[in-house]
Amino acid sequence: METKFQELKNRLLEVNDISSAAGLLYWDQSTYMPPGGAAARARQTATLGRLSHEKFTDPAIGRLLDALAPYEKSLAYDSDEASLLRVTRREYERSIKIPADFTAEVVNHTSESYQVWTEARPANDFERVRPYLEKTLEYSRQAANFFPGYDHIADPFIESSDYGMKATDVKRVFAELRQELVPIVSAITSQETADDSCLHQHFPEEKQLAFGLEVAQQFGYDMNRGRQDKTHHPFMTKFSLGDVRITTRTKENFLGDALFSTLHETGHALYEQGICMDFEGTPLAGGTSSGVHESQSRLWENIVGRSRGFWKHFYPQLQSVFPEQLGDVPLDTFYRAINKVERSLIRTNADEVTYNLHVMLRFDFELALLEGELEIRDLPNVWCERFEADFGIVPPDDKDGVLQDVHWYFGLIGGSFQGYTLGNILGAQFFSTAVKAHPQIPSEIENGKFLTLHDWLKENLYQYGSKYTAPEIVEQATGTPLSIEPYIAYLRTKYGELYDLES
Amino acid sequence: METKFQELKNRLLEVNDISSAAGLLYWDQSTYMPPGGAAARARQTATLGRLSHEKFTDPAIGRLLDALAPYEKSLAYDSDEASLLRVTRREYERSIKIPADFTAEVVNHTSESYQVWTEARPANDFERVRPYLEKTLEYSRQAANFFPGYDHIADPFIESSDYGMKATDVKRVFAELRQELVPIVSAITSQETADDSCLHQHFPEEKQLAFGLEVAQQFGYDMNRGRQDKTHHPFMTKFSLGDVRITTRTKENFLGDALFSTLHETGHALYEQGICMDFEGTPLAGGTSSGVHESQSRLWENIVGRSRGFWKHFYPQLQSVFPEQLGDVPLDTFYRAINKVERSLIRTNADEVTYNLHVMLRFDFELALLEGELEIRDLPNVWCERFEADFGIVPPDDKDGVLQDVHWYFGLIGGSFQGYTLGNILGAQFFSTAVKAHPQIPSEIENGKFLTLHDWLKENLYQYGSKYTAPEIVEQATGTPLSIEPYIAYLRTKYGELYDLES
Repeated sequence: METKFQELKNRLLEVNDISSAAGLLYWDQSTYMPPGGAAARARQTATLGRLSHEKFTDPAIGRLLDALAPYEKSLAYDSDEASLLRVTRREYERSIKIPADFTAEVVNHTSESYQVWTEARPANDFERVRPYLEKTLEYSRQAANFFPGYDHIADPFIESSDYGMKATDVKRVFAELRQELVPIVSAITSQETADDSCLHQHFPEEKQLAFGLEVAQQFGYDMNRGRQDKTHHPFMTKFSLGDVRITTRTKENFLGDALFSTLHETGHALYEQGICMDFEGTPLAGGTSSGVHESQSRLWENIVGRSRGFWKHFYPQLQSVFPEQLGDVPLDTFYRAINKVERSLIRTNADEVTYNLHVMLRFDFELALLEGELEIRDLPNVWCERFEADFGIVPPDDKDGVLQDVHWYFGLIGGSFQGYTLGNILGAQFFSTAVKAHPQIPSEIENGKFLTLHDWLKENLYQYGSKYTAPEIVEQATGTPLSIEPYIAYLRTKYGELYDLES
Repeated sequence: METKFQELKNRLLEVNDISSAAGLLYWDQSTYMPPGGAAARARQTATLGRLSHEKFTDPAIGRLLDALAPYEKSLAYDSDEASLLRVTRREYERSIKIPADFTAEVVNHTSESYQVWTEARPANDFERVRPYLEKTLEYSRQAANFFPGYDHIADPFIESSDYGMKATDVKRVFAELRQELVPIVSAITSQETADDSCLHQHFPEEKQLAFGLEVAQQFGYDMNRGRQDKTHHPFMTKFSLGDVRITTRTKENFLGDALFSTLHETGHALYEQGICMDFEGTPLAGGTSSGVHESQSRLWENIVGRSRGFWKHFYPQLQSVFPEQLGDVPLDTFYRAINKVERSLIRTNADEVTYNLHVMLRFDFELALLEGELEIRDLPNVWCERFEADFGIVPPDDKDGVLQDVHWYFGLIGGSFQGYTLGNILGAQFFSTAVKAHPQIPSEIENGKFLTLHDWLKENLYQYGSKYTAPEIVEQATGTPLSIEPYIAYLRTKYGELYDLES
């Protein structure tokens, strides 16, 4: 058994090494690669992607898993070995269902589609991408049908990113949340918009980057196992548990962009850096679901990084970095500016209250498209109608409407968005549990200390990597299944102090 | 035939993609990787190295080459297709002779050896690395014996880096060169040493980097297909013909380091950037030998970059970048400083005259070690004796003696050094031929123009990549086989103007 287990681990390590190299190809492409490298890089990424898929779906891995099944049964469910076998089997069984040729075809298609989208979006030309998107929807339906027996055609996608949840679960949670959220949004947006002009001044890039990275390190981001680089669309990436990197972008005329994007990616990175080192190179060495991952980026970015307590400590420091810009701006004005709520067009720029409405809109459209209830050609109109209904404003064009997100143009349709809102919900649930266990956390944050919070998260969430599913770890860490209550309570408290929520 | 040829090219492209990704792993490790990434990175590099070797030595490639042999015979020798088949076969036949297990063992051993060396060198402790070096010598002999029928045991190594030359050829060339060189070195070093104190001032890093890169671009380095980053030990690397990067390092208290290392790596990069784009992803898409590659780094660094004409144009610019440091330093003083010749301990810091003596010493020791005429344990003493005989000074310790170069501690012994001196010789041979064809080149250089020279090199050398062997391309481009005469004439003219060479 031990030999077979070791052989399996060796094979997984090889897959991991190839995937990590592919990850580096992407990181480099997004940070430093000269433009001339683009064509070959696309090919290299595809080659490594194909290789790691081939290696992972090698029937020898299936045979090893079969041979090791009695061994797995003999072990405790929560032992590292049993967990490794369980998670590997789950991913293996998923992977072998999708033919390599199909994947290659989709990769080719989405690369083209992405290319066209990069030109169509600035040109506000939905018609150019429409045929690509129609093909993408076809591919998405085909992909779902490699997983017969689903309850909803979106389930295979949702299970892939948020294992343990189905479309029906997400719909129920979103319906509950929507009911609570809509009145809050209405109450806030009927009042005077906060003045965030203090954020819209000239802030030199280097100082922005240095301040953000300083806060990231105060949170506990280990620079011995990480670094920060500039990119167009910030992301976190990992090449090993010893090398977890964040990227950010700056706008010199807007302070909010780099700072909160850095804190967001730092949240993702803290999760990955906190995973048990014994899991290195195995399928356990990664966050367990898109929702739980997003819970950490949102927790550190919003619940901590946009809190009044946090800025009690850090605002004087920020003022001393930007004395001309912020020296005369009171803390309260700054705090209101970074928590400005408004009905806006772009999901990625949305505040934490309205953000979820953007997500729900996309989630509902993904289901309707996959179900065949909505046609691609109707998407721009339907987008505008729904947007007006939810936000009270109409997108002036498709560029800032249906063309705004890369997801559908660079991948399949399905399972792309729900993780963001699940993350908002879970971030509050984890945070409130940590504070119940350690009531000193808020006052520590006011003093620029994050150790108790970070330790609680490592102890109860990070260390486990993918050992437990999202539902398992949520229940284990917080004592209850996913619940919107802590999130709603968080919003009510925070925004109740900023706005009149009874109106 | 066409299908088989295409299948071969596809397989070679896959190998190329994996090797390029491995190259990026190394580039990243040498530039940006945080320290915590080291352990996994070593493993990832080994995995990709093994994979690309497996893919290249796949018997299917042998069968394709066999099947395509009649096709190759039907083509002109210098057609791209015949060249691709010829060069692929040569590399394939070489690769299959070395068992994968042996390579893996050697990689493990040299990684350990390198690790020990990084500690032993600063500690001046040869005894610590001795057992590793002894094992390396054993491995080197074994490696040579995978190529039975050699004339000299070093031939398989020399053929690997400088195909078309054998130990006996190198020995003959080095003996001729030595005979000419020793009197020049003696004549120069018996005179007063040049004063290079103007280079040893404080030069801010950013300005050094910007100036070097500006010159690189003037040479013709295409930043659309390249970039420069900082590292510890500068190198050039390529991920595709569209992405050829250089690295450099700066010393803020010495101007010579970053500047000439940048010009050196630029020379390598111009060669790679000049290769015919049709060769992308094939074994033809790289420089043809270590000697020819080095000829380009030395040509651009020394023959151009340390020439009086070059500085006639660029020195005023350099002075305006560093007015406090160089404003009062006359061109002639600066020119003598950057061409200071002295008997010194370290190969990589040596001037272009004495440099070759460092190389010959190492080359001779490699032969003697492989022949069994020299034991590892005697190396430190023999090094000092030979060094005293050649340079008239005795290394004060092993740190700056036998421990100084990484080559033997991070790879096999054999074929490691001759390329540097072959490069010096060939650089002068190519340059003098270009000048014969275009006598205006020196005056163009005096005006900061490099197009005629660069075009001649692209036309006669760069475009061909590995299509022709070094002896073939040298004869084709210069009309004669490798000859030391242009190099000796170059040294006599240049240093005859700086020193009295008749004394």
